[in-house]
Amino acid sequence: MSFIATPQSMHFAEPLPLQSGAAIADYTLAYETYGTLDAARSNAVLICHALNASHHVAGSYAGQPRSEGWWDNMVGPGKPVDTDRFFVIGINNLGSCFGSTGPADANPATGRIWGADFPVVTVEDWVNAQARLLDALGIRTLAAVMGGSLGGMQALSWTMQHPERLRHAVVIASAPNLNAENIAFNEVARRAIVTDPDFHGGNFYEHATVPKRGLRIARMVGHITYLSDDVMNEKFGRQLRRAVEDTVEGAGPGGDAAAPAAYRYTTQDVEFQIESYLRHQADKFSDYFDANTYLLITRALDYFDPARDHGGRLAEALARAQCRFLIASFTTDWRFSPARSREIVRALLDNGHDVSYAEIDAPHGHDAFLLEDPRYLALVRSYFDRIAREPATAPAAAVAPPPPVEGAAA
Amino acid sequence: MSFIATPQSMHFAEPLPLQSGAAIADYTLAYETYGTLDAARSNAVLICHALNASHHVAGSYAGQPRSEGWWDNMVGPGKPVDTDRFFVIGINNLGSCFGSTGPADANPATGRIWGADFPVVTVEDWVNAQARLLDALGIRTLAAVMGGSLGGMQALSWTMQHPERLRHAVVIASAPNLNAENIAFNEVARRAIVTDPDFHGGNFYEHATVPKRGLRIARMVGHITYLSDDVMNEKFGRQLRRAVEDTVEGAGPGGDAAAPAAYRYTTQDVEFQIESYLRHQADKFSDYFDANTYLLITRALDYFDPARDHGGRLAEALARAQCRFLIASFTTDWRFSPARSREIVRALLDNGHDVSYAEIDAPHGHDAFLLEDPRYLALVRSYFDRIAREPATAPAAAVAPPPPVEGAAA
Repeated sequence: MSFIATPQSMHFAEPLPLQSGAAIADYTLAYETYGTLDAARSNAVLICHALNASHHVAGSYAGQPRSEGWWDNMVGPGKPVDTDRFFVIGINNLGSCFGSTGPADANPATGRIWGADFPVVTVEDWVNAQARLLDALGIRTLAAVMGGSLGGMQALSWTMQHPERLRHAVVIASAPNLNAENIAFNEVARRAIVTDPDFHGGNFYEHATVPKRGLRIARMVGHITYLSDDVMNEKFGRQLRRAVEDTVEGAGPGGDAAAPAAYRYTTQDVEFQIESYLRHQADKFSDYFDANTYLLITRALDYFDPARDHGGRLAEALARAQCRFLIASFTTDWRFSPARSREIVRALLDNGHDVSYAEIDAPHGHDAFLLEDPRYLALVRSYFDRIAREPATAPAAAVAPPPPVEGAAA
Repeated sequence: MSFIATPQSMHFAEPLPLQSGAAIADYTLAYETYGTLDAARSNAVLICHALNASHHVAGSYAGQPRSEGWWDNMVGPGKPVDTDRFFVIGINNLGSCFGSTGPADANPATGRIWGADFPVVTVEDWVNAQARLLDALGIRTLAAVMGGSLGGMQALSWTMQHPERLRHAVVIASAPNLNAENIAFNEVARRAIVTDPDFHGGNFYEHATVPKRGLRIARMVGHITYLSDDVMNEKFGRQLRRAVEDTVEGAGPGGDAAAPAAYRYTTQDVEFQIESYLRHQADKFSDYFDANTYLLITRALDYFDPARDHGGRLAEALARAQCRFLIASFTTDWRFSPARSREIVRALLDNGHDVSYAEIDAPHGHDAFLLEDPRYLALVRSYFDRIAREPATAPAAAVAPPPPVEGAAA
């Protein structure tokens, strides 16, 4: 049983200037906090979320036992990021659809739903919005900022945008930018949404429709890229769909039907288990995720590229950073492969920054950053144990690096 | 300048029994032949096509200089598969949309367009249909059957279905079956098509619509899996779209505009070159490809699994084969990786079959099998040179294996 989490929100009247040149005023950020801020205000840890997650990082909502946060295995009392020692903050990013101001909300200037007119937001904009929330909470310096995937990009961006406000950055299963293939998959997802007749140019709210077909396709494409080839073959392989509804005699122990022995020869119905799984994931996703948010968040991924203003030289961009780093990647992640994390490590080392790097031999692909892997959780635990033990006022350089983790190549 | 090719077609009245248990009667196969059948009828080579190709393998149509066949670099006078020596046959498969009977044709039994009611066809069905055409052409034995990707699956299936009718099988960039990830990508493409409102359950012909949105998404997904990460990064990387239409001053030599320096911050318009390329490929494809054919052909891919009737033991399935094999794969092909070709090689070796295997270090991913790679073309040329020199009546075992090809790991 998880602890009880309570969502909060804060309103910001002052316009936030955005990277695009636009600005957004009168916006709300949804957030949650776990643990207690210490008297020196030195034990705050910010968790940044990836594509479809939210401020609800850990714990469960009262009366909703199945509402665990998305990183509940990582954050909480006694967990690797221990809320008995750290004051942990989760923030829903601007443009999302879980409580912070986003495209489904009304634009206060016009009274109409933002829809496709919601301003394009970037990783850098999110970081600035997060910094304002920290200001409002009275937190000047973070013990650490941490995130996986797109969340890792935010953590990395923090080290360049607000270098003086961090002691540590933990960047997991991330990349210094998207490559052409990553952008291509995002584009497929966006085209599926935008060309769904129910999208109505992004103003589907006023037509009382939801572009579910497009959202389903987007989720299927995304999901394939989150999983490794290996884990897909192990979990599904070429298994045919268990035909629970087809036959009662076929039902095995626990009510499951046995896999059918013969092909049904159908082009439109489910034949293989992997199809059934993807359709199920797609249906779930299309029930809760906002289509305009999907466009905005995938674009934020596409646009992130801190080396861009430095002629492609990532080391030059990261020269500003002052904190210590833990970078981790997973061997079977083909969305953001270890090679991409190594680019970050190399750029940090070029600057003489203090960086620990672990390449974790995990079978689950990109999704591994969310999963229960003992070596991975031990790595993060070890890193945060040391952060907790460092004198609150000590400069980052006084902290010893964590010991090598068994099974993880440093 | 390519030689002149002439499409032909043959009608078959007798029903063809299909693997699904159905049958199809009164069907037509479109085909082309190049070169001359020798007196002993021993120099015929059958070329099997992949997903979106056809019987138009080589040459150009009279008066259409830009109508080269899809394997024109491989097949023709003086080419690796030399039509001065071989009688080469290309056949459009049943269910396709380039001249052979398919879903866009009328069902002679009802007079209505087949649409979604066209029977599900498999690789094995195609092979049997191809064998009937060879019968009609008076060809009992093939010097070789050859194909890449799905075409390679047909070549492999020939060696099991009609082992006595072949001397050689050339199987390029193929696999003994699809893995879960392959099926998953096919399923995304099919869902995009089937959920397009213009699909009308597959009977869009009578609604005078075409599910172009779905076809576009299907093509984009497919295209990404045909290219390697490396070649995508080299060709497109993170380049922004050259804004030819935005500015005349920006136009460089040859009318190309320079890449813009700044992001435009847009979620629905093209920002990156890779997006522009994918949209262009998608538009082209949706103009000519039949949506029901896409479903049928991807399903044929999904269903192919010769080991299935042998408890997953591919070697057992291939025990029947009597011919010699050339298997080739490409190092950067992540759709049908070299590991999948090696599964075939291992199963052949387990049977003591004569097999040459080349793993070609090419950067282009799965698409490499269609491209101009000197080592690849030399490998095929060398193999076919030896077939041409073998006595027409000699058993396959009398042919020496080709010498190792430079740069290709045997």
